[in-house]
Amino acid sequence: MSNESSTQVENLEHHDCWALLRTVSVGRLAVLADGRPDIFPVNYTVDGGTLVFRTGQGTKLSAATGEDAAVAVEADGVDPNTGLAWSVVIKGTAALVKSTEEVLDTSRLYLFPWQSGRKDAFVRITPDSITGRRFKVTDPMTWWTQISSSARTAPE
Amino acid sequence: MSNESSTQVENLEHHDCWALLRTVSVGRLAVLADGRPDIFPVNYTVDGGTLVFRTGQGTKLSAATGEDAAVAVEADGVDPNTGLAWSVVIKGTAALVKSTEEVLDTSRLYLFPWQSGRKDAFVRITPDSITGRRFKVTDPMTWWTQISSSARTAPE
Repeated sequence: MSNESSTQVENLEHHDCWALLRTVSVGRLAVLADGRPDIFPVNYTVDGGTLVFRTGQGTKLSAATGEDAAVAVEADGVDPNTGLAWSVVIKGTAALVKSTEEVLDTSRLYLFPWQSGRKDAFVRITPDSITGRRFKVTDPMTWWTQISSSARTAPE
Repeated sequence: MSNESSTQVENLEHHDCWALLRTVSVGRLAVLADGRPDIFPVNYTVDGGTLVFRTGQGTKLSAATGEDAAVAVEADGVDPNTGLAWSVVIKGTAALVKSTEEVLDTSRLYLFPWQSGRKDAFVRITPDSITGRRFKVTDPMTWWTQISSSARTAPE
């Protein structure tokens, strides 16, 4: 088989991880639900060393905000200039943001929900660890390019 | 706030879920590692009602193939024709594929690793459940388009 040459994986510094997390807004949230892993796409924003996402009622909210709610979030992408892929994983705990003012005080507040409909709760993920890797993607691949990396900058 | 209108979520039939899973080859695998959720991007292929991915040694392999290895895999995308997003989640158990012949006998065998380097093990995920949703994405969004959806069709 081809492409069995060298493993070209670069471990990323924390500041690189955060910078990359800011370049996208869709990640996947892994939680424990009834003792088993579950996974959801989330539309997040980086806020002062934490991630914040908005969600409605349901498994995602209850699993992410229970007692000792350990979660992991992964985001990834590919650098269009270098063709290198990256993947960043945050592990930490999630907690419901209880005060509207706390949310309103954060920068880049205006989180659009990933889908239409009511999204009533804000959840904040405080990292215990952040790890990231950059690596060469082996062709052929199904991959994606981002068509927009800008979050809305002001609330209406 | 805008976009609080109706929740437009369509639950997908099983055959639609499988068809969508075949249109991409990158998903995210959620596992339990030391009692906490962890998450990894994986390059999978659909094989006879199961998912198969290839991986090297490490957390992903050990967490996905331990006793009662409950896992979840999520894949998603956006239909360029309709602009509708979809997300499919498989929950099930993962097991190491022990026989090379078993792998070689499957169709669409040739799974490219998501990154270069040695990828020695094949893992098969047998679903307990498959669920999928199709929904309208709320703008503005960071989203992606697939630049290739074809898996390599023949081993070298």
